[in-house]
Amino acid sequence: MKRVEIFGLAGIGEVGAGDPIGKLIVDACSRNRVVLEPDDVLVIAQKIVSKSEGRLLPLDGVLVSDNARELGRELDKDPALVELILSESQRIVRRGGRTMIVETHHGFVCANAGVDCSNVGLGKAALLPKDPDGSARKIRAEIKELVGVSPAIIISDSFGRAWRLGTVDVAVGIAGLKPIKDERGTKDRYGYELRAAVTAIADEIASAAELVMRKKEALPVVVVRGCEIEKEEGSVKDLLRPKTEDLFR
Amino acid sequence: MKRVEIFGLAGIGEVGAGDPIGKLIVDACSRNRVVLEPDDVLVIAQKIVSKSEGRLLPLDGVLVSDNARELGRELDKDPALVELILSESQRIVRRGGRTMIVETHHGFVCANAGVDCSNVGLGKAALLPKDPDGSARKIRAEIKELVGVSPAIIISDSFGRAWRLGTVDVAVGIAGLKPIKDERGTKDRYGYELRAAVTAIADEIASAAELVMRKKEALPVVVVRGCEIEKEEGSVKDLLRPKTEDLFR
Repeated sequence: MKRVEIFGLAGIGEVGAGDPIGKLIVDACSRNRVVLEPDDVLVIAQKIVSKSEGRLLPLDGVLVSDNARELGRELDKDPALVELILSESQRIVRRGGRTMIVETHHGFVCANAGVDCSNVGLGKAALLPKDPDGSARKIRAEIKELVGVSPAIIISDSFGRAWRLGTVDVAVGIAGLKPIKDERGTKDRYGYELRAAVTAIADEIASAAELVMRKKEALPVVVVRGCEIEKEEGSVKDLLRPKTEDLFR
Repeated sequence: MKRVEIFGLAGIGEVGAGDPIGKLIVDACSRNRVVLEPDDVLVIAQKIVSKSEGRLLPLDGVLVSDNARELGRELDKDPALVELILSESQRIVRRGGRTMIVETHHGFVCANAGVDCSNVGLGKAALLPKDPDGSARKIRAEIKELVGVSPAIIISDSFGRAWRLGTVDVAVGIAGLKPIKDERGTKDRYGYELRAAVTAIADEIASAAELVMRKKEALPVVVVRGCEIEKEEGSVKDLLRPKTEDLFR
């Protein structure tokens, strides 16, 4: 019987700037008696990657522009936080209430450019990694170097949706798997040619991992075992809808 | 170690109008030697529920309006399919290319009102269940009646996203679990009060199940075991963003 298993690696602990995430994961695997397999997917919470890359900033050190100050007033948000969000954004897609939906420099359309003050210490904000695919590739290479196995890596973050409440975790960085499963052009068992059968499998894996990760229990690394994945270098860019096809930008 | 397991129930087979999904699931559990547990979540592909409820229509029996004919020409879609989509919709939210994003009578904002011609037989289309929460409650009651256990039920479908490519499975009907985990107002381990910590756990479970379900392998019922869920009657309506908070309608 086909079975997918999802379990967290306990004991990763606090991550600081410069800490090698790959080594932390390998150590946690030893402690948890987990032997990584080549077809495993390791889902890693964005926040520990950001911490290890020094992407944690004290809000009181942010130079606030007049624009950010005004927007902060309008949105009832800390102007230093707004300044960080603007610095991480190509442009604002929508704003309303206390919400700012932006397009980040990476091309993600999300609330607050992924800048987040939770689980990072009071008065601080975590920014998304600058090059999340690069971060994922680096972690994958570290693990390969240490244990000779290259599981796929997904760096995940919690994104809202336009028409549904609550966040779901999605991939923001990828290494070692094809994030999209494209079955267009194949036929179903009745002979009907599938036209829209493109599945964002990396996002589904990130969401599945979140069921174990849960925000406050400090399980920032989760193993997803038993998925059928297609191995390739992979990039989160394959999950971003091109502007030309976007009906809601 | 906390572990979530996801496995499919093989051998459900073809579902026809009037077939009792609850009994089919109980029989498949016996054959697969699966003993359902009260904290299990059963994720059921929308299509078999629609089939059992007779929501499968032959396209050549659809009376096509002038409006549907014109839209069909514009979108390069079968006008009978467009007619069905319109009949399932409160309104069109956006259209462009071959895409119609609508708001269904249930309140879902999705492509084609969930009307789908794949895996249902040539020349036919499946509509979403009329009352998917009701369908989920009915299946849950059938299972309870037969084996005395009431797992939570999620009826799932594949929805696209505004800014990301590929579909992910989400909940379209719910019975027996709270679909949203709301941690707003609680504090993280640094004492920071969480403001946006609302997780669409039912959608994450639906996405996790899709990793096992996979379209063409005929595993339309999947057991998700080991999730922390909050039990309540539940409704998919709790996952729908109210119009007043919607920035993209």
